[in-house]
Amino acid sequence: MVSTFADGGFVQSLRARWLRSSSLLCVGLDPDPTRFPPHLAAKPDAIKTFCCAIVDATHDLVCAFKPQIAFFASAAAEDQLLDVIDYIHATYPGVPVILDAKRGDIGSTAEHYAREVFERFHADAVTLSPFLGFDSVAPYLAYRGKGAVILCRTSNPGAAEFQNLDCAGKPLYQWIAESVATRWNDTGQCALVVGATAPRELAQVRALIGDVPVLVPGIGAQGGDIEATVNAGKTDEGGLMISSSRAVLYAGDGEDFAMDARRVAIETRDLINRYR
Amino acid sequence: MVSTFADGGFVQSLRARWLRSSSLLCVGLDPDPTRFPPHLAAKPDAIKTFCCAIVDATHDLVCAFKPQIAFFASAAAEDQLLDVIDYIHATYPGVPVILDAKRGDIGSTAEHYAREVFERFHADAVTLSPFLGFDSVAPYLAYRGKGAVILCRTSNPGAAEFQNLDCAGKPLYQWIAESVATRWNDTGQCALVVGATAPRELAQVRALIGDVPVLVPGIGAQGGDIEATVNAGKTDEGGLMISSSRAVLYAGDGEDFAMDARRVAIETRDLINRYR
Repeated sequence: MVSTFADGGFVQSLRARWLRSSSLLCVGLDPDPTRFPPHLAAKPDAIKTFCCAIVDATHDLVCAFKPQIAFFASAAAEDQLLDVIDYIHATYPGVPVILDAKRGDIGSTAEHYAREVFERFHADAVTLSPFLGFDSVAPYLAYRGKGAVILCRTSNPGAAEFQNLDCAGKPLYQWIAESVATRWNDTGQCALVVGATAPRELAQVRALIGDVPVLVPGIGAQGGDIEATVNAGKTDEGGLMISSSRAVLYAGDGEDFAMDARRVAIETRDLINRYR
Repeated sequence: MVSTFADGGFVQSLRARWLRSSSLLCVGLDPDPTRFPPHLAAKPDAIKTFCCAIVDATHDLVCAFKPQIAFFASAAAEDQLLDVIDYIHATYPGVPVILDAKRGDIGSTAEHYAREVFERFHADAVTLSPFLGFDSVAPYLAYRGKGAVILCRTSNPGAAEFQNLDCAGKPLYQWIAESVATRWNDTGQCALVVGATAPRELAQVRALIGDVPVLVPGIGAQGGDIEATVNAGKTDEGGLMISSSRAVLYAGDGEDFAMDARRVAIETRDLINRYR
């Protein structure tokens, strides 16, 4: 499977993008029509229009975009998801697109999810659950150059329930971090997810994984601490994709909502960079 | 949210179905067009036609149907998935439909996945990952009467990698079984997934969860042992949804493929019942 990047795969492209954009900000595309500006609400392709306006207003401020497939699926808007991803590739080449889908299934089923993500939706990377072990991730890695962004320690209130359980002397999330960074990452296609609400865990993960990229949700609406996140997870080249969705997308609800989003994205990028 | 069952929710309906059908067999609908009989392959709605033929040929032999969403998503066939589920509800009322989707995401995203599964696709239950903890499952339980079928110990070769890790004296899958059967199951909407490839684990899980239903994939193509599965997991009323997909669906590849599927479904149901 040919990568959409001329200069290598997802991880190499992300590294180039960190350098070129001087940004660790990832804008998450979680389109919720009930929160759209009134002038968009009635349009038949409101989701696509909204997302592309956000992309246009923030593309120079981000290291990646991260559409969340649930928001498209709940609206039966798969066609608009494809349009948004294709729009990013065509208009802003070099900006990686991570499809946030958190898939996790047995190998024969994972082959179908991988086809959905990479062949149908043209994503550069996908978020995956590690719960079923390596053979549930391998079908995604078979798409050379594509990225597998594996959940390690999530940002939600209940994350610690199982992820922080002490397993033979260390918490589950550390077992995952070590497995992904070593045995799972022969081809250099892996990244991890650690929430901004868990900076202590992020520092421990970073110590285990070298320069493997980490996607960090949980700032903005979820209340994660940017200073603590950057200090815990940064590397010389960047190391982090710090994702904000709702705080950027819904910064304003007027006709100039995209400029409000741009303003919040600039503030967030600059705040992140203050601590690099 | 009104249940599709007149007599209560998913779990009650499953119990009634065990009694009425005298079957613990669940037929999994994993439609793979590359394996369809040649006379179907060229049809524009081949997936729907194939699945509905399987449903017609096996409806009286099953306690539930389990469509796997990845097989529809990889073919951009969401409309056919809805048609198949609506066909089952309309033609064979009382047969529960579990959408196998293995979702697992933070609460605000889970609300969208729950809407997709229950409002868009009209499923009676959905498979979910426990990895993010209870708040990632709660939005599904908010649909009263709908079922949440939680992964506990999966059937794939790599399942033990994390699920069998010893966590403070017991394996992770036992922590999950206990949590789901107690704290998560106040409303009686939960079930668990334990693979037929792990009968020892299934027996341990059954000892922890009382009569909570267990979905058991992994017989048929995956090689799980039916006798060991039934002995490990049965309850007086049934207790198990033993799922077979490929072995039933692709029993034949001629024009009478559905009758071949029926023959294998009968054999499998009868083999299961021999050990009850």
